[in-house]
Amino acid sequence: MRYLLSLLLLCTCLVTASQLQAAEPNFVIIFCDDLGYGDLACFGHPTIRTPNLDRMAAQGQKWTNFYVGASVCTPSRAALLTGRLPVRSGMMSAKRRVLFPNSKGGLPASELTIAEMLKTKDYATAAIGKWHLGHLPQYLPTKHGFDSYWGIPYSNDMDAVKGFPGYKQTAQKDPNYAATIEQYQVPIIQNETVVEKPANQRTITQRYTDKTMEFITQNQDKPFFVYLAHSLPHIPLFAGKRHLGKSRRGIFGDVIEEIDSGVGQILKTLEDLKLAENTLVVFTSDNGPWLLFDTHGGSAGLLREGKGSTFEGGMREPTIFWWPGKIAPKIEMEIGATMDLLPTFCSLAGVPIPKDRVIDGHDLSPLLLGKTDKSPRKQVYYWRSEKLYAIRIGPWKAHFITEGCYGIGPKREVHEIPELYNLDHDPSEKYNVAKLHPDVVARLTKIAQAHIQSIEPVENQLAK
Amino acid sequence: MRYLLSLLLLCTCLVTASQLQAAEPNFVIIFCDDLGYGDLACFGHPTIRTPNLDRMAAQGQKWTNFYVGASVCTPSRAALLTGRLPVRSGMMSAKRRVLFPNSKGGLPASELTIAEMLKTKDYATAAIGKWHLGHLPQYLPTKHGFDSYWGIPYSNDMDAVKGFPGYKQTAQKDPNYAATIEQYQVPIIQNETVVEKPANQRTITQRYTDKTMEFITQNQDKPFFVYLAHSLPHIPLFAGKRHLGKSRRGIFGDVIEEIDSGVGQILKTLEDLKLAENTLVVFTSDNGPWLLFDTHGGSAGLLREGKGSTFEGGMREPTIFWWPGKIAPKIEMEIGATMDLLPTFCSLAGVPIPKDRVIDGHDLSPLLLGKTDKSPRKQVYYWRSEKLYAIRIGPWKAHFITEGCYGIGPKREVHEIPELYNLDHDPSEKYNVAKLHPDVVARLTKIAQAHIQSIEPVENQLAK
Repeated sequence: MRYLLSLLLLCTCLVTASQLQAAEPNFVIIFCDDLGYGDLACFGHPTIRTPNLDRMAAQGQKWTNFYVGASVCTPSRAALLTGRLPVRSGMMSAKRRVLFPNSKGGLPASELTIAEMLKTKDYATAAIGKWHLGHLPQYLPTKHGFDSYWGIPYSNDMDAVKGFPGYKQTAQKDPNYAATIEQYQVPIIQNETVVEKPANQRTITQRYTDKTMEFITQNQDKPFFVYLAHSLPHIPLFAGKRHLGKSRRGIFGDVIEEIDSGVGQILKTLEDLKLAENTLVVFTSDNGPWLLFDTHGGSAGLLREGKGSTFEGGMREPTIFWWPGKIAPKIEMEIGATMDLLPTFCSLAGVPIPKDRVIDGHDLSPLLLGKTDKSPRKQVYYWRSEKLYAIRIGPWKAHFITEGCYGIGPKREVHEIPELYNLDHDPSEKYNVAKLHPDVVARLTKIAQAHIQSIEPVENQLAK
Repeated sequence: MRYLLSLLLLCTCLVTASQLQAAEPNFVIIFCDDLGYGDLACFGHPTIRTPNLDRMAAQGQKWTNFYVGASVCTPSRAALLTGRLPVRSGMMSAKRRVLFPNSKGGLPASELTIAEMLKTKDYATAAIGKWHLGHLPQYLPTKHGFDSYWGIPYSNDMDAVKGFPGYKQTAQKDPNYAATIEQYQVPIIQNETVVEKPANQRTITQRYTDKTMEFITQNQDKPFFVYLAHSLPHIPLFAGKRHLGKSRRGIFGDVIEEIDSGVGQILKTLEDLKLAENTLVVFTSDNGPWLLFDTHGGSAGLLREGKGSTFEGGMREPTIFWWPGKIAPKIEMEIGATMDLLPTFCSLAGVPIPKDRVIDGHDLSPLLLGKTDKSPRKQVYYWRSEKLYAIRIGPWKAHFITEGCYGIGPKREVHEIPELYNLDHDPSEKYNVAKLHPDVVARLTKIAQAHIQSIEPVENQLAK
């Protein structure tokens, strides 16, 4: 009996020690597709319910000035995973905006992803959901530091077959329109193998959530990183049975509410497994709402324009950080970006940042942890089609070129005198104050020119 | 000693009994001026901090479809206090939008205000702040059921003297511009007497808050109703020392943050006095943001247009109900309106609604208290300049006439075929679906015509 008791005590000590030794936190990224700045209740949407994300924001940090690296899918994802502007990796093109099923390119092997960085500390890593950084075998997540992959490798509207109603025309008539699954012959790839085709998109959101919880549960005893990249709310919109027709906002709202439900399930899994206090969860999206699709696209809230544009609506995203007991609840108005996740995670995990390349990201961990109230990020570079369209320094944003969303919005215009907005005072970019502040325009123009000089030409992957 | 103990016990019983007998709840309305739907953090603003309103929303009910009775000051205030559309009381005019210092009219004595209704149950009543329902002695709050009044009787930009810089021109150049107090010779009236002129607007927000807390403290032993109508953020913007220059949003943000601070002080007073669980607090504003003034005006968030317009930005307001222990926290997407406050308060206080007139308001108390999840209000009538511009029934809104804010925005247009929007799917009123739903257009047109027939001509007060 005494022996048994001693054993029990020893086991308890070991468990405690192992918990204490868990210096490396876990990381979960939940990344949406085409979610607008205004599409969550906690960011002001009047008819979409997001109680789980609202809870996450209330317990965590709601970032109101958080940016992506590009206003469309492929380059934005490259930026997030590499911590580098997509022009540096050849993942942004003037000719083809994103990768298509017939593309031959992808994220070069020379690029280092968050997963590869964390692998140096033996993290378990999984990519679940949309990849869109190359679907040929050499570009898949399993070649970029992820132990496993399960998801649709590119946008869910690709591999479309003819003979079905046009999505835009049908969506314009019906805010509840759900397309036929067979219309989009997109595959689901498990690691490197197609396991389903066409992907059943009606169940895809919940299945991504399930796979994420399964991975977390299986890896609860070691540090892990899971990158959950939802295929939705990119069109075609699909919602599961439990959510279809439940939102006031039509099928777009159903989709968001299903994603929100999944967020709740994932947070609860972390709490149930007692992992919440050792896990940093980040929620955001790849770019702004696809306004081309009427009510099947989202809303950028008070921000101007949407997906494709370098106005704020295209590149500022509703972002939430959650790490109970570690990061104090607040609304964070300092600037951050998806490119900062790589250096931030590396810092928290004790992984050195690579020195052989330009990393555009900054370590946000001192700000997240409350050791400072200033972000190391003071600037945002708004690239589109291999051109620097705009730059933000502090509250000031100068537009050298302006252009609306693809297909709608204002036409491309090169400005001899850049447009200048103060985003703190004027988040909707309504009042051009360039004439009042020629000194600011000159300063931002100079910084932009130096920045452009820092970009070295590389092989373009999207044009392949 | 035993005698003392008995006395103590008796006192305790008496206090408990008095608390139990307090059947009539207290009511506090905090009403802003020209606050936009998007100007609070909990409604999505990225650079204005409103921690107290965020707390109020988290503990209470955040209403996302809550309307005012008109898109400018005077008629909106008449609607709130009488529970009636301002066209029924002569408080809306095609000629003069609001009352001016040289106006001779005001809210007719025949109209019954919330204060007059509650007086039948012996409520202590106070009006603090902007009145704007007639500044001649016969129209003042003390003639309309309020025991006392203290505030600026009309808009804070009136009684302007010449020789100062133009507000708009200066504001456009400087998001932090604070005007000179002497430029606006508006009085402060206490009951019926001018006690200050020009009003020191730099301290006005905190003084309104102080007067409100003072009134609550003095009347804590009986049911009370306080109507706090802030003069701000109507231009000219003024902020107190503690807030000036503190917000990222310029002086407009400073003003909102000072109002928010006041809300926190008032809620804390109610909590400290143990009155919170017997007090319903309502926060909203009179109309949307005055977009004419660039960054000195607010933001309607994702809603279209602002003050003056019958698009949503002019008449939907960020609204919060708070009553700890009585109304359960939620985000309420059902329709409500300021005109509903009169019947709601009457219902909660046990006061019968007057039967000799049309009351446009509905009793929201069953919905607030969770006895139903449907609002009795299914419709919104959008009047402007004595014309019915638009109507909302459920999610559908038909515009018979459209027009932007005064001075900016689209010109007045009468539509042969009304524009039709589904506000649940399309809160920004971007996608006119009239051609897809001629049946809905016909139904709303019929309801609108019947509604117009219900308006009886009365003497116009604003044209006087």
